[in-house]
Amino acid sequence: MKGSYSPDGKFYPFPTEEDTRKEEETLIRITEEERKKGREIVAIQGLGFVGCIMAAVVADAEDEHGNPYYFVHGVQRPSSRSYWKIPVINRGIPPVESTDPEVPQIFHRTVIEKKTLRATWHEKAYSLADIVVVDVQLDATKPQFGHAELGYCDMESFKNAIRQLGRLIKPDCLVLVETTVPPGTCRHIVKPILEEEFQKRGVDIKKNPPCIAHSYERVMPGANYVGSIRDFWRTFAGIDEVSARKAEIFLTRVLNTKEYPLYKLGDTNASELAKTLENSFRAINIAFIYEWTLFAEKIGINLWEVLDSIRVRPTHRNIMNPGLGVGGYCLTKDPILAHWAYRDIFNLITANEDPVLGHWKEWDRFSKHVGLPLAVEAVNINDLMPLHTAELTREALGGKVKGKKILLLGASYRKDVGDTRHSPCETLWKALEKEGALLSVHDPLVKFWPEIPQAKIQKDLWSALKGMDAVIFAVAHKDYFHLPPEKVVKTAGKPLCIIDAENVLNDEEIK
Amino acid sequence: MKGSYSPDGKFYPFPTEEDTRKEEETLIRITEEERKKGREIVAIQGLGFVGCIMAAVVADAEDEHGNPYYFVHGVQRPSSRSYWKIPVINRGIPPVESTDPEVPQIFHRTVIEKKTLRATWHEKAYSLADIVVVDVQLDATKPQFGHAELGYCDMESFKNAIRQLGRLIKPDCLVLVETTVPPGTCRHIVKPILEEEFQKRGVDIKKNPPCIAHSYERVMPGANYVGSIRDFWRTFAGIDEVSARKAEIFLTRVLNTKEYPLYKLGDTNASELAKTLENSFRAINIAFIYEWTLFAEKIGINLWEVLDSIRVRPTHRNIMNPGLGVGGYCLTKDPILAHWAYRDIFNLITANEDPVLGHWKEWDRFSKHVGLPLAVEAVNINDLMPLHTAELTREALGGKVKGKKILLLGASYRKDVGDTRHSPCETLWKALEKEGALLSVHDPLVKFWPEIPQAKIQKDLWSALKGMDAVIFAVAHKDYFHLPPEKVVKTAGKPLCIIDAENVLNDEEIK
Repeated sequence: MKGSYSPDGKFYPFPTEEDTRKEEETLIRITEEERKKGREIVAIQGLGFVGCIMAAVVADAEDEHGNPYYFVHGVQRPSSRSYWKIPVINRGIPPVESTDPEVPQIFHRTVIEKKTLRATWHEKAYSLADIVVVDVQLDATKPQFGHAELGYCDMESFKNAIRQLGRLIKPDCLVLVETTVPPGTCRHIVKPILEEEFQKRGVDIKKNPPCIAHSYERVMPGANYVGSIRDFWRTFAGIDEVSARKAEIFLTRVLNTKEYPLYKLGDTNASELAKTLENSFRAINIAFIYEWTLFAEKIGINLWEVLDSIRVRPTHRNIMNPGLGVGGYCLTKDPILAHWAYRDIFNLITANEDPVLGHWKEWDRFSKHVGLPLAVEAVNINDLMPLHTAELTREALGGKVKGKKILLLGASYRKDVGDTRHSPCETLWKALEKEGALLSVHDPLVKFWPEIPQAKIQKDLWSALKGMDAVIFAVAHKDYFHLPPEKVVKTAGKPLCIIDAENVLNDEEIK
Repeated sequence: MKGSYSPDGKFYPFPTEEDTRKEEETLIRITEEERKKGREIVAIQGLGFVGCIMAAVVADAEDEHGNPYYFVHGVQRPSSRSYWKIPVINRGIPPVESTDPEVPQIFHRTVIEKKTLRATWHEKAYSLADIVVVDVQLDATKPQFGHAELGYCDMESFKNAIRQLGRLIKPDCLVLVETTVPPGTCRHIVKPILEEEFQKRGVDIKKNPPCIAHSYERVMPGANYVGSIRDFWRTFAGIDEVSARKAEIFLTRVLNTKEYPLYKLGDTNASELAKTLENSFRAINIAFIYEWTLFAEKIGINLWEVLDSIRVRPTHRNIMNPGLGVGGYCLTKDPILAHWAYRDIFNLITANEDPVLGHWKEWDRFSKHVGLPLAVEAVNINDLMPLHTAELTREALGGKVKGKKILLLGASYRKDVGDTRHSPCETLWKALEKEGALLSVHDPLVKFWPEIPQAKIQKDLWSALKGMDAVIFAVAHKDYFHLPPEKVVKTAGKPLCIIDAENVLNDEEIK
């Protein structure tokens, strides 16, 4: 029997044809009931890190009399990786681990108490919706490590998701794209697909042009996970005025726009570009600090102290700190989305075409394949950065890691989160493993490391330390601050190399 | 007769031998009198943009009873370019133009009222001083436009200035380097020179090691010129504890450290690196925005609006705006100082030597000659950036600028300052001139453009506009905001192309 395992090991068989037939009836019945209560219907397409929380936030929104604005169908395809989320959500339980206490609360409140959120696998939900929020994944592929300029977006599954909407939605349904997409996607990919599907169904697209808007989230799956979606600034844009107006009403109802006003941009191209620019800004600033980290290390100065002294200037407050590397779902790919759009959506290849840069022969070395050389180079530098910690570890161990017992403290991509996607720890682990190190890993927030399934995540720090030759502070989790250095060394039971990639240890305490 | 012309055209003959003999006596007499009043003696070496204001700020410092801490000898060599500053300062008049009303006030107060500041050309001042503040110039040379990686520092005149101090100063005199220098300069250049000169004089450098400290200013020669030196954060470091302590006492007395606490770093290498890193951070962030400016222009979106929406995030507040380019004395050279130090002071060539980057063959393309590839590339991109505005002008004029009358609005390197050093307007002017444009320029704050002496700076905007084919808003001076677009076009008297490189014009007003 086919089905899906949840992270705690429970098996959920896929729905039968009979289940699916019944589900359609249920969806129609619930929707009718909800409409009678004066509620509009929202479908969320994709229940990943953003979609599941967004679904709950929309379902939680109320008018000034405490009446919910919307009933939400959270839609997830019945895949073996994700189908389990549907029955779990429908018991009022969040499908994500989080340190944010509001996550379980908001699922209980919306699913069990208010009954404004229900998950389903059935695409019928889209045809019933007034608004569909697109939260499907869109990844960038990097075919070669250290060569982000060769990166591209495989748009097929995203396009299929949009095509599905085109087949099903009411012609006046607002399609609000929340997925981070290459600039130009709404106008040059979503719009033509919806128009084509509308026309196949005989919809007059002159009279009923598809309503499309883009608004990007700034989610941070940590201690303020729900707040990072609901209580934070939002930028949005519509493909036309009608779409923009619909999106504005929806976002104003759903988000805390009193404290965090909406920003309306003139075009979806602008809103899409804003998200990739925003994350590229972070990426380039991290990459920039890396080259100064190497310089500072080589001349023996403490760069953390230097950066603290610089950050006092308001104009320099955003200067970044050194660290192991950059991870997560966004910073590692968003510059590539923009770069790919530059090249493959807008067909703007700059080589010798840009009249300015063309003046300068040497520009060639960047522009041959690249429209956004600094942003793309930032991804390369950041991807490679963990190798430097591998190198420091090798040096600390006298030139060889082969056969040495090395403990990684942290596996997630960021301090105080349990998300391991594109974690720099992965690059570090693989580099040390390749050289024959005997690796183990501890992380207080990660239960299982899907990218490195052979790594058994240890939960007891002190027993994990026993017998180690080296320990690497790879993630600045709270638990790792103020560890007594003496106890750490004593617990290892033999000379221990400590590599602190995240400035976790306190210099005073070491003395 | 040899001498020096001041900017307002007055001639000041150089001092005679007799003058110089008398000056020495005067210096000795004044110093003795001032010591009797309990004041320490400070000499400022170099009365440029920083040194002249620093001299006045030091002379203005008082204890809690209103008694000046220091008497200041401001020392300037008798060159034809700068000798005039000495008699001018000694009449209580600032040797710099500024929109800051405190500039004339502080010179009048210290020179005329308190009599704690006096300018001189005589090096005797150094031998009388307890503290010498080094404010001599140190430039980077870029032998080829667009190839900052070939840049270097010619240290000869800086070294000579230090050697002069080594010959003259009391062994316990603090040498406080305020000039922006390549990281490593105090330790690897200043210290050996002072030691050598001390030894020549028979000073026991074991007993009397030279006292050296580094502290960098963050001057901004605009409306808050004096405040940018006195009322702003300072970072400092000493070459040893004695030097650091002396520097700390001096800076605490002289600067507003109550509101802007001092930052002490562990080593002069760190303090020197901090300044170049700080300015490189700005340079890379400007260069980064340039590539997105080209993208946004090509896909027809308003990047200013996008950046406003991003800047709302505290983590992204420092994201820069597009513009004509980058100028001024610091951002155009400080990354090169660091790069040169990396290569020529510390001899750290990264090519294939860095074990991490060595893993990645493609790193070669950056590392061959460069230790700080992003910082150096930023200088290149920024240096070339004004050519893009030249290109936009050419396009606006139908593909040719030859014979076209073009007015530049602004010549200075930055809005609301009169400083033209390394102004991007210079690059723009030269690019358009080369193509045969008939150029003119207006600037409310610049009287004379030393880098382009043939350009007569116009002062009446409306008469300057008459008969123009194109006008370029090149600097965002206050005077250029809220110009009525209709009047601008009408005054030209024929079809006028307007190129707004600095977002000076208001979109609403244009409509």
